[in-house]
Amino acid sequence: MIRSCKLTASGKYIPKKKVTAEDVDVLMGNDPGTALASSHIKTRYYADNKSETCISMGAFALHEALEKANLELNDLDAVICASGTGYQEVPFNGSLILNFYESHYSYSCKNITSFDVNSTCLSFVTGLDVVSSMMNSGRFKKVAIISTEVASIGINYSQIQSAPLFGDGAVAFIVEPTTENSGVLHCEFQTYPEGAEYCELEGGGSKIPAADIHDVDVNRLLFNMDGRKVFKLAYREIGDFLKSFFIKAKLRLEDIDFFVPHQASYKSMTIIFEKLKIPSSKYISLIEDYGNMIAVSIPLGLHMAIENKQIKAGDKVMLLGTSAGFCIGSLVIQI
Amino acid sequence: MIRSCKLTASGKYIPKKKVTAEDVDVLMGNDPGTALASSHIKTRYYADNKSETCISMGAFALHEALEKANLELNDLDAVICASGTGYQEVPFNGSLILNFYESHYSYSCKNITSFDVNSTCLSFVTGLDVVSSMMNSGRFKKVAIISTEVASIGINYSQIQSAPLFGDGAVAFIVEPTTENSGVLHCEFQTYPEGAEYCELEGGGSKIPAADIHDVDVNRLLFNMDGRKVFKLAYREIGDFLKSFFIKAKLRLEDIDFFVPHQASYKSMTIIFEKLKIPSSKYISLIEDYGNMIAVSIPLGLHMAIENKQIKAGDKVMLLGTSAGFCIGSLVIQI
Repeated sequence: MIRSCKLTASGKYIPKKKVTAEDVDVLMGNDPGTALASSHIKTRYYADNKSETCISMGAFALHEALEKANLELNDLDAVICASGTGYQEVPFNGSLILNFYESHYSYSCKNITSFDVNSTCLSFVTGLDVVSSMMNSGRFKKVAIISTEVASIGINYSQIQSAPLFGDGAVAFIVEPTTENSGVLHCEFQTYPEGAEYCELEGGGSKIPAADIHDVDVNRLLFNMDGRKVFKLAYREIGDFLKSFFIKAKLRLEDIDFFVPHQASYKSMTIIFEKLKIPSSKYISLIEDYGNMIAVSIPLGLHMAIENKQIKAGDKVMLLGTSAGFCIGSLVIQI
Repeated sequence: MIRSCKLTASGKYIPKKKVTAEDVDVLMGNDPGTALASSHIKTRYYADNKSETCISMGAFALHEALEKANLELNDLDAVICASGTGYQEVPFNGSLILNFYESHYSYSCKNITSFDVNSTCLSFVTGLDVVSSMMNSGRFKKVAIISTEVASIGINYSQIQSAPLFGDGAVAFIVEPTTENSGVLHCEFQTYPEGAEYCELEGGGSKIPAADIHDVDVNRLLFNMDGRKVFKLAYREIGDFLKSFFIKAKLRLEDIDFFVPHQASYKSMTIIFEKLKIPSSKYISLIEDYGNMIAVSIPLGLHMAIENKQIKAGDKVMLLGTSAGFCIGSLVIQI
C-alpha cells in the first residue's frame, strides 16, 4: 500500500568555505596526497559555525525550499528536523530553526508542530518514513523535513580513516499531499546493536557531565570510528537486509529506477554497489565533492538527482544507507 | 477518526538515590528550607550515572514493560526513544539502549527499527503521536516508546529557580494493535519560537565545539531557565491552545476523564489547572515526590495513574504540557 505524498520542492545550503584534500593534509600534519589517497574525497565544505550553524543553514535551506514550493512557513503543519547531531542539548533543533527563521526573515510562526528525529546518518529516511505515515493517518498535510549538520566541529584530526571524510551543509524537502500515484512504497530499518560503539562521539550528553569536562581527554569529545568493523558488519548484513526488503516490499531490484545511497565512504559505497551488481549510472555519488555529510548526504543526493534530471516523475527511487547505531535502512519512494 | 492502538503495559525505573529538599539546600549552599519554599518539591531521585545511566534505566524500564506485556524484545517492530536529552552526541539513545539490553540480558536483537524523537519535555507525547500514526498507516504493529532522562547532571546549583526542580528516571510503554475502541483521538502541538531561549542547555552540540570546551564558562554547559518568562508565555497561550484543541478534536473539556500534565513546576501546574477550573482530583501530581523529570514526567504520570486505578479502560485521558522550545502540546488517548 502506497503512503501517498509528494516531494514538491527542496532547498539546500552549502557552506562558503571549500576545504580540499590538501587542506586536510595540512590540518592533520600529513604529507600532501595522504587524505586524497585515503578517502578519494577531493573537496568538502566546512561551516564557519558563526553565520553558518546547523540552525541557520537549516533555516536557509527551508527558506529556499518554501520559495520553490510557492509556500510560506505558516502553510506548513510541521517542521521536522532529521539530523544526526544537534546544535545544543536543550532545546531541540526544530524549535531553534523556527526561532532563527522568525528573526532572520522577520516572520511570525503560527500553529506549527516541530520536533526532531534522529537515527544518525539515516535520519532523513526516518523523517520521511514518519512524515509519510503521519500524512497517511490524517495527522499532517504539508510538512518540511530538514537535515542539517556541522560535522566539521567533531573531527578528530589524529584519525586518518575518519578525518578526511566529513563535510557540512543542510537540505530541506517540502512534502505535500497528492492525487498522483506518488508516495512511499516501503521502508525497512534494522538495528544491529553489536555495532553501537563502532562509530561514536561520546561527549554532548549525560555520559560526560559538564562538571567533569575539564578533566576529560578531548578525543572523547570528537568523532571516533572503527571503519574496518563498520564495513565488515555492513558488508555481511546488506545482502540479507535487501533480500528481506524486496520480499516484504513486493518489489525486485530491477524495479528500482535510481538509487540514492548514503555517502558513508567512497570505498564502501563502490564495493557495496559492485556486490549488488548495480552500475554507477543507476546511483548518485557526491562524496568526492562533498564528503560524508551525516544525515544530509541522502537528501542532498535526492535533491541533486532531481535537479540533474537523473530522477523523473514516476520513478521508483531507493534511499539506502547505514548509520551509526549500527543500522541499515532503506525506503523506496515513487517520485 | 481514532488512531487505533492500546497501551498494553508499562515499566519504570527510579534511581536508588533519594535527594531531599534539604540535600538540595546543602548542594546549593543555602539555608535549610530554601529549596522546599522555592519549589514545593520534597524529594527527587538522582541517577549515579554509572550503573544508572539514561541508557541502562531505559533498558530496565523496557524490560519491565515487556515482562508485563508478556512479550520479548524481538516481538516488537520498533523501539523509539522519546527523550529531551541524550547520552552521547553519536549514536542516538535508541541504539544504545538496544546495545545495553543485548549485553545486560544476554539477548540478541533481530529486525528492530530504532530511532529517537525529541521535543524536550513533550517527547513522549510526540512519540505517541508518531507511533499511533505509524501503526495506523500499517508501518508498525508492536512498538515500545521509552522516555529516559538524567537531568541531574545538568543542574546549575547557582540558580534557585531551576536547581531544585529536576529528577531522573525512565518509563517505557508498549503500544499494540487492538480491536477495542482505544487509541489516539487527537493531538495538537504548537511551537512558540520566541521562547526558544527561555530554557536551554547550550553545551552538547555543535554550538560549543570540543576544541573550545576548556575555555567555556561551565554555566553554559548547565541548564538555564528564565522561569518568569516561561510561565508568562505558557499562561498567555494555554487558553487559546486548548480552545483550538477542543474545536479541532470535536471534544469538550468535560469529556476528559483524567489529565496527565507535564510536571514543569508545582506552582505553574497548580495555577494553570486553577485557570482551567479543573479540580486536583482530575489530574495527577507527582512533582512533590519526583520533581520535573523532563520527558519522563508525562509517561510516569500515565503509568502511575493507570497503576493507581485513577484511569480505567475506556477513559479519555489528556496528556498536556509545555516544553523547552517553547512548545505547548496535548494528546487525548482513549485508554
